[in-house]
Amino acid sequence: MLTIKSRSHEYSVEEFQTLSCALRSTDRSRAHYLIDRSIIQYYNEVIASETELSRTVLIEASEENKAFERLTPIFLELLEKGLKRDGVLIVIGGGVLQDIGCFIASVLFRGLRWELVPTTLLAQADSCIGSKSSINVGPYKNQIGTFYPPYRVLLTPQVLQTLPFDEIRSGLGEVIKLQLLNNKDGFEELIDDLNRLSSDTRFSIISKWVQRSMEVKKPYIEQDEYDRGVRNLLNYGHTFGHAFESASHYGIPHGIAVILGMLTATFFSARLGLIPEEYYFDLKQKLAPWHKPFGAKLLKVDRSAIFSAIKHDKKNTGNSINCILTKGFGCMEKHSVDFDGELQPAVNIFIDQEINL
Amino acid sequence: MLTIKSRSHEYSVEEFQTLSCALRSTDRSRAHYLIDRSIIQYYNEVIASETELSRTVLIEASEENKAFERLTPIFLELLEKGLKRDGVLIVIGGGVLQDIGCFIASVLFRGLRWELVPTTLLAQADSCIGSKSSINVGPYKNQIGTFYPPYRVLLTPQVLQTLPFDEIRSGLGEVIKLQLLNNKDGFEELIDDLNRLSSDTRFSIISKWVQRSMEVKKPYIEQDEYDRGVRNLLNYGHTFGHAFESASHYGIPHGIAVILGMLTATFFSARLGLIPEEYYFDLKQKLAPWHKPFGAKLLKVDRSAIFSAIKHDKKNTGNSINCILTKGFGCMEKHSVDFDGELQPAVNIFIDQEINL
Repeated sequence: MLTIKSRSHEYSVEEFQTLSCALRSTDRSRAHYLIDRSIIQYYNEVIASETELSRTVLIEASEENKAFERLTPIFLELLEKGLKRDGVLIVIGGGVLQDIGCFIASVLFRGLRWELVPTTLLAQADSCIGSKSSINVGPYKNQIGTFYPPYRVLLTPQVLQTLPFDEIRSGLGEVIKLQLLNNKDGFEELIDDLNRLSSDTRFSIISKWVQRSMEVKKPYIEQDEYDRGVRNLLNYGHTFGHAFESASHYGIPHGIAVILGMLTATFFSARLGLIPEEYYFDLKQKLAPWHKPFGAKLLKVDRSAIFSAIKHDKKNTGNSINCILTKGFGCMEKHSVDFDGELQPAVNIFIDQEINL
Repeated sequence: MLTIKSRSHEYSVEEFQTLSCALRSTDRSRAHYLIDRSIIQYYNEVIASETELSRTVLIEASEENKAFERLTPIFLELLEKGLKRDGVLIVIGGGVLQDIGCFIASVLFRGLRWELVPTTLLAQADSCIGSKSSINVGPYKNQIGTFYPPYRVLLTPQVLQTLPFDEIRSGLGEVIKLQLLNNKDGFEELIDDLNRLSSDTRFSIISKWVQRSMEVKKPYIEQDEYDRGVRNLLNYGHTFGHAFESASHYGIPHGIAVILGMLTATFFSARLGLIPEEYYFDLKQKLAPWHKPFGAKLLKVDRSAIFSAIKHDKKNTGNSINCILTKGFGCMEKHSVDFDGELQPAVNIFIDQEINL
């Protein structure tokens, strides 16, 4: 069990053999549920026997549903189903469910107890700790949100076994990022393990790296929960990654977009002389298996949409662009770069020549 | 200048001679504005010269607009008008504007700097400090909200001069409540002052009691910002008052409803033997001028709607009802009372026999 300190409250990350065990650890008499509809297809029986249908709201986990204007019916359904301020909201799903559940719990009754059962690799290894929710409004992505961690995070490796391999691959983006932020040994051990991934080894390898990812992330979010300093470094790869993701209309999954974003940031770092070119070439070669076939698809994405997204990232406050660049393993730095003179040419060359395999 | 400590940040309450001076103290280059449309009719020139129309959103301050489902267009207008995370939201208005502004500032970019220019007596003397926002969703009143105080509160007595006298009277409810929570001397001095209220004395008397109200409220909100203990006592009169307000479809203004609610709570306290009947009779006589003619209107309000509202108050977690009763000046207590056996009969007698003047 891991414990995380937050300005709001301390919370625990607990591991359970099965989803059933995880759900049995909650206070069912006080619980209402927010469940990703797609979970039902794999865990219909567990959900039926370990939760209360009459106190459940099912949600389709789509980017469109993670919108402020789509939350009203969810609030109403929870209130109509009798949720009170002494209740607990149990959220079962991946990143979209977490964002919706966290936001709702943070503002309903000015703050409601909630517990999270993350069901994707991305949610288990990365987003389930760190307090953040992100909600879209109209065309503006992730501009609304809160800092409000769950009171308990209930991990179960069982749910990762039923995930399609593409879902696992998408989650690897943040796992890889965290080891690049860690150190050379961590990164190389991860790459070795990933190269040995098979349906037999999947379970134990993934569980190991879920744990290792959280250990790397924990000090960043505890020291800087509100993301005003050192936590910014966790955005390595994200200025570019978010832009690839949104400009592709989410055709490039988040984790893959982060891998491509880290390669962009590293290519850019080498061009600026922050690291030797060899570091970039090595990374490019080692990460190649983990972004195929999406890397090549970048060439077809509307280039102006990519640049527009980079400019409008919520982390940019003026005309220059903030991005996290690298001086090597465990050594990321925030830089403010000139959009026209530095950033745009580097991204153009990267997409045209580096990733077009 | 008063300073208030909050879990989120410390903030100041500053007084200015005029609205113009207050607005000049803000950082206009970074400001966007959320302004109560009705302010414009009195302060058109000041608003035009001291704010930026191109960065202003005007809002009609109605209960209907204080709804979650009505916030989307406000977010979109602010974002379209270029509000960024390093901006400041200046909110000018009464309680509804404060609720909307506070909620938006607390979730936009996961927390945006905001400053408040309260323009009603209720907002100046009471709600501007204490961090809370309250937002309706569908038929559910005030069930959504956040704790997020402004970074600065800019008070100006000037704006109270243009308020209709009924608006002033409505604001007095919370002013009276705070002196009842204070002590006998404070309450009697206030009643004496109120009896001397005239258009000539209004300015200085009201300014004095705005200041005195804040001094009483400050320790409650600093010790218990999240309203889990001693701050509950500030709800004296509110369990009943909120019910009168909503059951009358907001025909009874908030402050008047609080006065009627305090009388109900005091009548109930006397019936339960917590205080001598004389205390109640004295209070009833002294407060009579300040709820007319709304007290008599209570008889016409749908009684079942009143009881339904009391039962569904967000502060009630089970079947018994929490309400703040009194043992005298400065001596309020939280009690859990039986709805059928105790509360309902007392409220019926109060409305039928006590207030039907």
